Amino acid sequence: MIIDCHGHYTTAPDAHTSWREAQRAAFGANEAPPPYPTISDDEIRESIEGSQLRLMAERGVDLTVFSPRASAMGHHFGDEAVSTRWAEVCNDLIARVVELYPDNFIGVCQLPQSPGVPIGNSAAELRRCVLELGFVGCNLNPDPSGGHWTSAPLTDRSWYPFYEAMVELDVPAMVHVSAVTNQNFHATGSHYLNADTTAFMQLIQADLFKDFPDLRLIIPHGGGAVPYHWGRFRGLADMLDRPALEDAVMGNVFFDTCVYHQPGINLLFDVIDVDNILFGSEMVGAVRGIDPRTGHHFDDTRRYVDTLSLAPGDRAKVFELNTRRVYPRLDAALNARNPKASLGSPTSDAGLPSSTGAAHNAEEK
Amino acid sequence: MIIDCHGHYTTAPDAHTSWREAQRAAFGANEAPPPYPTISDDEIRESIEGSQLRLMAERGVDLTVFSPRASAMGHHFGDEAVSTRWAEVCNDLIARVVELYPDNFIGVCQLPQSPGVPIGNSAAELRRCVLELGFVGCNLNPDPSGGHWTSAPLTDRSWYPFYEAMVELDVPAMVHVSAVTNQNFHATGSHYLNADTTAFMQLIQADLFKDFPDLRLIIPHGGGAVPYHWGRFRGLADMLDRPALEDAVMGNVFFDTCVYHQPGINLLFDVIDVDNILFGSEMVGAVRGIDPRTGHHFDDTRRYVDTLSLAPGDRAKVFELNTRRVYPRLDAALNARNPKASLGSPTSDAGLPSSTGAAHNAEEK
Repeated sequence: MIIDCHGHYTTAPDAHTSWREAQRAAFGANEAPPPYPTISDDEIRESIEGSQLRLMAERGVDLTVFSPRASAMGHHFGDEAVSTRWAEVCNDLIARVVELYPDNFIGVCQLPQSPGVPIGNSAAELRRCVLELGFVGCNLNPDPSGGHWTSAPLTDRSWYPFYEAMVELDVPAMVHVSAVTNQNFHATGSHYLNADTTAFMQLIQADLFKDFPDLRLIIPHGGGAVPYHWGRFRGLADMLDRPALEDAVMGNVFFDTCVYHQPGINLLFDVIDVDNILFGSEMVGAVRGIDPRTGHHFDDTRRYVDTLSLAPGDRAKVFELNTRRVYPRLDAALNARNPKASLGSPTSDAGLPSSTGAAHNAEEK
Repeated sequence: MIIDCHGHYTTAPDAHTSWREAQRAAFGANEAPPPYPTISDDEIRESIEGSQLRLMAERGVDLTVFSPRASAMGHHFGDEAVSTRWAEVCNDLIARVVELYPDNFIGVCQLPQSPGVPIGNSAAELRRCVLELGFVGCNLNPDPSGGHWTSAPLTDRSWYPFYEAMVELDVPAMVHVSAVTNQNFHATGSHYLNADTTAFMQLIQADLFKDFPDLRLIIPHGGGAVPYHWGRFRGLADMLDRPALEDAVMGNVFFDTCVYHQPGINLLFDVIDVDNILFGSEMVGAVRGIDPRTGHHFDDTRRYVDTLSLAPGDRAKVFELNTRRVYPRLDAALNARNPKASLGSPTSDAGLPSSTGAAHNAEEK
């Protein structure tokens, strides 16, 4: 089974996106936003089948851990009420996708973060999504200001109430920023990668995982600059009298494979323990084109991982088992569906059920 | 000959560092700073011979392109007058090091940047350093606010007056931030790398090198996250309808080798054309410890490059010729010293003079 841990609903129906514009305009005009539109199942199917599902089928990806479009979270905009309503409708839409395609998607939620608002206030939406909608994780924005970095570091105690909720619910967070309003940064070209690198360094500098030994964070985009500069980070930990990264950080932190060329993927696997790598493609997302050098999509990260010819056990970890371990509620959902495919059982692609994914997608088109 | 393009005077005499503290205190108290102290040649020798020169000798580095301590530039602090005076005394101190050890160092200057002050005002100090002190380049801070990113992107026309001075003087800039006052960032652990990545993406998005075909920028720390995410940047250029990186950016942009482990260096050379890579170690600098896995200093980047077993021509490019090409005034200075070793002549380590550097250092100790 192949699970993509990092997919965003970047092709949501126009009515959804237009409502956000209306909500923003209403906030600017100090008016109430219009009612959220009725969106039909067919509109959702249409938005998914020609893009996300088609690409998953083409690439042999069975299931995507699916969350609202990250760049559209826009936590910097408006206030807590604006972010709360926007998060709710985005998450509800994800829940509908999951309901329509339960074999292909499982939900991860957007949080109603807002600059200056205590992160603990986001726990209610997390709870709703996990307990009522069956979501298995969340995207946590370390910079809700949108590129001005006005919050405290992720290791500050002000974040702790939210971590407590995460641990209680047994869900991980992907550390993921959103759109950027600082003209120095390009969202997917620098802000995302900078945030990944920034978060990792914050985790080196503090004892967050001593306080939360069960907290799990995914740092996306292959860990930003971290694997490429692994020696720098190891050296800084040493120089700052911090414990070794393997002991103090890498028990709780995971990187995805959203690195869009073979040499980068090679480095990631060369440097980072295979237990810390989750397959992901950030699809349909940041980079949508075809690499003229390979003839394949830049973000078809499965090809790069396949090229590594990992040992079968390692391959199963990266494509499935690590993600099931990091997202226990995903594992539980898959086990409930298919008791034989539980984490404890011996695994191989052939032995696992959901390579039915591709066929299933084909049927639906 | 082996040239390190990236060295900072991180071991400057205490009197120099103390004066900066006094200058800061005076600014805070709205008083004039005390006079700059007298620093003897012996104090300078002592600060250099046991650290920078010793390490250069040990590692077989002949010459370092040497600039004031980057993290101490502190452009965010004070005002233009404070930054101007601090840049002057820092650059004068570098000039004294070069005067004492002309075979081992050549100067690169700190600029008197200050948030909100036009960068064109920094041209005077650049001119002084190049024309009067014999410096061959400068460190240009894309974020003089110290981690709040309040300036315009490097491609904004507000930076053009300074680029005009650079082109006129035929000197490159290393894009290098300084200390950070935003608690989210660690200077050498995230702010430096983020700035590198940020600058590169800015250069993709605009036509700076159309306007300045002769402008040359070095992005340090191995280019931040860029080589690891080379596919992402290539894909983004394509998606944003920008020309290919090779055509629009890489004729003017160079990365150093400040990547502190073998897999990172392997990736750098795998992905980036050898003509765009300059040997550098950022020494004595960001990471000072010894890697227990190798028994060698993390920042002994020569070892990593040597391990690549580059073809002799490529090796000469990385260790010497690229840096001479990017810093024509360095090339001219070396040619003036040793006419036979000019860029045009066939090159090999043996054929070039300054592997006398190590012996020379030994003499001086």
